[in-house]
Amino acid sequence: MHILITGAAGMIGCKLTARLVADGALHGRPIDRLTLLDVGVPPRPENFAAPVEAVAADVADLSAAAAAIAGRPDVIFHLAAIVSGEAELDFEKGMRVNFDGSRALLDSIRTTGGGYRPRLVFSSSVAVFGAPFPEAIPDDFALTPLTSYGTQKAMVELMLADYSRRGFLDGVGIRLPNIVVRPGRPNKAASGFFSSIIREPLNGEEAVLPVDDSVRSWNASPRAAVGFLVHAAGLERDALGPRVNLTMPGVCCTVAEQIAALRRIAGDKVASRIRRETDPLVARIVAGWPSRFDPRRARALGFEAEASFDEIIRVHIEDELGGRIAA
Amino acid sequence: MHILITGAAGMIGCKLTARLVADGALHGRPIDRLTLLDVGVPPRPENFAAPVEAVAADVADLSAAAAAIAGRPDVIFHLAAIVSGEAELDFEKGMRVNFDGSRALLDSIRTTGGGYRPRLVFSSSVAVFGAPFPEAIPDDFALTPLTSYGTQKAMVELMLADYSRRGFLDGVGIRLPNIVVRPGRPNKAASGFFSSIIREPLNGEEAVLPVDDSVRSWNASPRAAVGFLVHAAGLERDALGPRVNLTMPGVCCTVAEQIAALRRIAGDKVASRIRRETDPLVARIVAGWPSRFDPRRARALGFEAEASFDEIIRVHIEDELGGRIAA
Repeated sequence: MHILITGAAGMIGCKLTARLVADGALHGRPIDRLTLLDVGVPPRPENFAAPVEAVAADVADLSAAAAAIAGRPDVIFHLAAIVSGEAELDFEKGMRVNFDGSRALLDSIRTTGGGYRPRLVFSSSVAVFGAPFPEAIPDDFALTPLTSYGTQKAMVELMLADYSRRGFLDGVGIRLPNIVVRPGRPNKAASGFFSSIIREPLNGEEAVLPVDDSVRSWNASPRAAVGFLVHAAGLERDALGPRVNLTMPGVCCTVAEQIAALRRIAGDKVASRIRRETDPLVARIVAGWPSRFDPRRARALGFEAEASFDEIIRVHIEDELGGRIAA
Repeated sequence: MHILITGAAGMIGCKLTARLVADGALHGRPIDRLTLLDVGVPPRPENFAAPVEAVAADVADLSAAAAAIAGRPDVIFHLAAIVSGEAELDFEKGMRVNFDGSRALLDSIRTTGGGYRPRLVFSSSVAVFGAPFPEAIPDDFALTPLTSYGTQKAMVELMLADYSRRGFLDGVGIRLPNIVVRPGRPNKAASGFFSSIIREPLNGEEAVLPVDDSVRSWNASPRAAVGFLVHAAGLERDALGPRVNLTMPGVCCTVAEQIAALRRIAGDKVASRIRRETDPLVARIVAGWPSRFDPRRARALGFEAEASFDEIIRVHIEDELGGRIAA
């Protein structure tokens, strides 16, 4: 099986690559070729027997998209995107990367011909939804995004469904929750603080909380996100039907509850490293995001997230900190 | 006030032009310039004092879109589209005209600058919805189109909302019901038979019904459609909020009820001119369309359709047949 990952140098892309390399197979089929694509050359996994191509390419460039598809990958994980904060600040860049890049990829697949119909797993986002919301958002709720990032993701979801319906490809869109705790340094995502307020205190550093601690969100770990992507790659087309875009399960909690979980797991001293400093842009963006879902279809199809925010923190400590917490 | 109409040579475009010319004003502001655009030169209205430009241009051509916007129209009615049947048969043409054409128009507005922020009324369609449906579709129901036409309209709706939210323009999307009874000859729209089965029998001709008469639909007259467009042009931005795309009111009825209304108004002889001959493509497309809505927002904002299918037939007889029916 030949697998292509776009956005392979990103956090999720790296973790997905590591998971696939560790498994050596996807849903029982050995991986005999891996193509990793990102705007910079993605890191090449060590100790993997099969051929790996690591390509620096801009997916919004039609010839780059066509070149990536020329190898006729069986499964494509399309993760390449610029994040919400950046898409809000630079409208044209967001449209070019998040929308035109996805369209170039989909159209390269469509025009390949010869019966080529790969599984394409698209990482969408719960930012496709925009307030006001019901108490718990059902699977058939309208997409009314309040950011350009969410708009671009929603537009690609629509294309993905139509291209799948027409038989051009075999798409699954998964709407990722807030992914916490992200390792590494802060990025430009408006949601970045959700990770910072757990990660930095656990590393002995101060973190800034730019929103009120009553803010509620829908969360899953990076490990769960990789699990969603892998699970999506193996879904039966008939089980999915024409509504190919699915809201992923997650843990609903407030920032206050997240801080309380941190305190339970790591103690008062760690939790006291969070400093409050409101950022109006971040607060406005996050206020329009959804925080509680009733994702029945994804659960019925076997997608699983953590059961509590405590578990999300423990996954971070296991996967990133070798099981240890700084005092 | 300067008004631009794209798709001005189409049925709705012509009727909208006639209404604006008859009124001479839009929401109390005199019309002092009218630009009519279509792929063929649109008909020029007679007896209108203000300057009228009738332009043959392809809105999907960026320079044509920019030229249309260069005159900085205050209100734009964006009706240009290819119909559902054609967009299903020719995928690339549908994307180019229905999506790229709309994007070119929106981007020409966005890049004009200098505080230019026109009202843009976009004719969307209830084909943005796809089965399965609840008993009556609420305003916050998901857009899961089952045609490429519906997909393209839904993608433009998303752009329209984001461009409005960012202040690039002042958009209103109106989801038109089945528009019946369309005058003239059949077009390639999958919904064309809804008009044929009323129009042809009233003209003494035979009509073909390609679907079962239990098929239910959501209907309004061409006169009501023009009324929706004109009303949308005058909506207060604050009353609309960020969800700028609205499902229009209509009359819910089955084909059998439509034929019964025709029989009540025009008699058995006229109603007997309908011949049944199933068309699987049309039947499949129409089966995925929505048929009953609860369009509370549009009604609260003052949009009005007919109260019954009998009234829709009477509007046709008044507006197209001079009040007379062929025996």
